[in-house]
Amino acid sequence: MQERARATRRSLLEAAARLFVEQGYARTSINEISDLSGRTSGAVYFHYSSKEKLALAVVREQFAAWPLLAARYAAPGIPPLEKLVALSFDIATALRDDVMTRAGARLWAERRTIDADIPTPFAAWTAAVTRLLAEARAKGELAGDVEPSGAATTLVCAFFGLYNLTDELAEHEELTDRVHRWWLLILKALQARPEPAALVARARAHSRPASTG
Amino acid sequence: MQERARATRRSLLEAAARLFVEQGYARTSINEISDLSGRTSGAVYFHYSSKEKLALAVVREQFAAWPLLAARYAAPGIPPLEKLVALSFDIATALRDDVMTRAGARLWAERRTIDADIPTPFAAWTAAVTRLLAEARAKGELAGDVEPSGAATTLVCAFFGLYNLTDELAEHEELTDRVHRWWLLILKALQARPEPAALVARARAHSRPASTG
Repeated sequence: MQERARATRRSLLEAAARLFVEQGYARTSINEISDLSGRTSGAVYFHYSSKEKLALAVVREQFAAWPLLAARYAAPGIPPLEKLVALSFDIATALRDDVMTRAGARLWAERRTIDADIPTPFAAWTAAVTRLLAEARAKGELAGDVEPSGAATTLVCAFFGLYNLTDELAEHEELTDRVHRWWLLILKALQARPEPAALVARARAHSRPASTG
Repeated sequence: MQERARATRRSLLEAAARLFVEQGYARTSINEISDLSGRTSGAVYFHYSSKEKLALAVVREQFAAWPLLAARYAAPGIPPLEKLVALSFDIATALRDDVMTRAGARLWAERRTIDADIPTPFAAWTAAVTRLLAEARAKGELAGDVEPSGAATTLVCAFFGLYNLTDELAEHEELTDRVHRWWLLILKALQARPEPAALVARARAHSRPASTG
């Protein structure tokens, strides 16, 4: 019974995420979510009580995936800047391939039109990037004049901009390519002994494709 | 008569811009625009025929201001990277102080919920930044491994991210401060002979506050 409820919730979340990605929050109705999931609209209301709650659940589902992503690089052998770059490619891939991640991003962009308090990942990301930059500093990998928390803010903002303008600026360029080029530029400023191309190549070798779901 | 029509249009545009900034496109009604402008709602329909057309007019009004902004730095004496940095501070200031600029940015962010083809400034910005970087290259000011058009895309995306996440990440940090810190980092990678702090100081001396309107 528990198991069945979980399966129902999962299929509702996935249908909602897909529709939010394709047509946005405002244009998606409970009926469409019910149709796409193959569940009744009664089931939607039973499990989530409203479209707002369902949107929140989609965003939370996406958030729950971040620690898993970060845990991939917990191994002590990988240098911190390499972890950071590898993580950015994982996130770029998830933003391309994973419907829950894409839905989370679109719901965040539309947050002002949603009657719910959509949580944001940026403070947590900035804290994580600050930690990695501080580790890099401790290991002598960070250029002397780079201040971890200020640089972290800059990096998170730039990544956000790369993601949000990718479709706007060049239809045929992938986010991962844009992120690659951006690291080649910014690592020159971040690394104590700049070797951006080599670092990005090592990081991309670690980085694994996100599971779609 | 022409003069009076122009004054009417201007006051409608300003009222609409103010309301779009404060409450977004969807929540703003023609009646509110009429109330705030002190003109009749008949005047709104006579001059703009719909809320969509009014939104487009606000965005176009903002676009019309960019060449003026750029023209400030047409003087041949200012080095291209310095022009670029000065321009970015002008835009950051306009995004803070100028209601038409702020309305344009918000309407663009809400473009998917507006039934009109909201034009985007990013291609024009990227072209302008590419031109300045190419000039910098010609003068030997650009680091040898920086490719103007790729770097221009990166810079425009990063600026967009800095603007859009400013309120999200730290309520008390101004966009101009964030842009300042970002240039200190990225100029290390862009300049042939890095001296970011000195260049930013010279650029800020050129940069002038935007007119509010």
